[in-house]
Amino acid sequence: MNNYRLTIAYDGSRYKGWQRLKDNDQTIQGKIENVLTLMVGQTIEIIGSGRTDAGVHALHQVANFKIQKRLKINEIMEYLNHYLPDDIVVLDVSEVSDRFHARYNATHKQYLYRINNSTYKDPFTRKYTYHLSQSLNITQMNKAASYFLGEKDFKSFTTMKSKKKSTVRKINSIDIAVKDGEITFLFDGDGFLYNMVRIIVGTLIEVGLGHMKVDAIPEIFKKMERQYAGPTAPAQGLFLKEVFYN
Amino acid sequence: MNNYRLTIAYDGSRYKGWQRLKDNDQTIQGKIENVLTLMVGQTIEIIGSGRTDAGVHALHQVANFKIQKRLKINEIMEYLNHYLPDDIVVLDVSEVSDRFHARYNATHKQYLYRINNSTYKDPFTRKYTYHLSQSLNITQMNKAASYFLGEKDFKSFTTMKSKKKSTVRKINSIDIAVKDGEITFLFDGDGFLYNMVRIIVGTLIEVGLGHMKVDAIPEIFKKMERQYAGPTAPAQGLFLKEVFYN
Repeated sequence: MNNYRLTIAYDGSRYKGWQRLKDNDQTIQGKIENVLTLMVGQTIEIIGSGRTDAGVHALHQVANFKIQKRLKINEIMEYLNHYLPDDIVVLDVSEVSDRFHARYNATHKQYLYRINNSTYKDPFTRKYTYHLSQSLNITQMNKAASYFLGEKDFKSFTTMKSKKKSTVRKINSIDIAVKDGEITFLFDGDGFLYNMVRIIVGTLIEVGLGHMKVDAIPEIFKKMERQYAGPTAPAQGLFLKEVFYN
Repeated sequence: MNNYRLTIAYDGSRYKGWQRLKDNDQTIQGKIENVLTLMVGQTIEIIGSGRTDAGVHALHQVANFKIQKRLKINEIMEYLNHYLPDDIVVLDVSEVSDRFHARYNATHKQYLYRINNSTYKDPFTRKYTYHLSQSLNITQMNKAASYFLGEKDFKSFTTMKSKKKSTVRKINSIDIAVKDGEITFLFDGDGFLYNMVRIIVGTLIEVGLGHMKVDAIPEIFKKMERQYAGPTAPAQGLFLKEVFYN
């Protein structure tokens, strides 16, 4: 079997997320699979490094697909970028080992969350940032962020429905940067649960606004219930930035 | 009379340009006038520093309007930003002298043109850049740009229809910068004719691609006819950046 790896950027604004639904046409996976299927004349299923929710963007999502036929790297790239809509771009295609699996082999991931902290919306970044005009206490947010580092049970910080699966994950770093009226949160971790980054950002915002104290964070971890954490920050500010493999 | 000055940013993608048409709702001027008229209960006409074409954006367009009633700066700002669509933002409102006229008093202006020179479109800048994957010779483009500096008759570089008005304008500088796969052209001049920046960019691109020689530029100036210059570069890459007043 031949195994091809894709690196993809997308503006998630008008999609129902990464993962294919029955209504194929409104997901990123569905769009890519449709074009590949058209290209090779047989049904293709691609494996993404993980899902992104409705409205979430990606700078470098990674996916792979296997096929008996041998394809040319350049042709896959040209065909996809020709037939995909403008808001999905394939940045790279490469041939990888038969054993490469975009989800199972990912060692860690980075997510970026952008807040436009100016008084008014910016017409050019309005779809790629969460606009919040109130001032945020960055020092307090940084203190709160440190409670999320390391291996923890993030049960209070997910809306994952399955009760069987582990909610333990490891966050390596959360870097908060302020520049040109924008606040960005860069998360690096071994994996993230459903809505986890957005709930952590929503919780850090509560701290930044002074609505929640820094030492409330360890208490929320103990509760093991979603309702004690802050609100889920809007999808439009979130980007899957990078997926790492060995 | 009270005179108010507005600084406005807009994503021009879905508009028919700045200038009000009969179909008021699809121009930026029209949108702003409608909201102001609603606010003050009388018909308001605003004067822009100049028109921008359909699809052209603005980082800092300037406009003014006069009214007998005294209004509060903050209220104008809040009201406009509340009722305007997300792609038009009022960045500043100030009270100015009775004699201030956004068009007549402008001493010079800056326009920015952005080319995405990467192999593929970028999903996040696709509405704000002209995507051109071929490589461009920047050195030749810089040489060609120098022919446009100073006071010149730009008759060959406009699609202005009036034959009576002067086509003499003065360009102070054209700075071409290359960064992160993007080529930007920053124009500074005392005023610009209809389509002038886009035709100059289109001509510089012809030079950059090697389709036109640098010394063709002075010849095109002499011809005094639009057809000899390069094509009009697409509207989506153009931004009115700044308008200067004494």
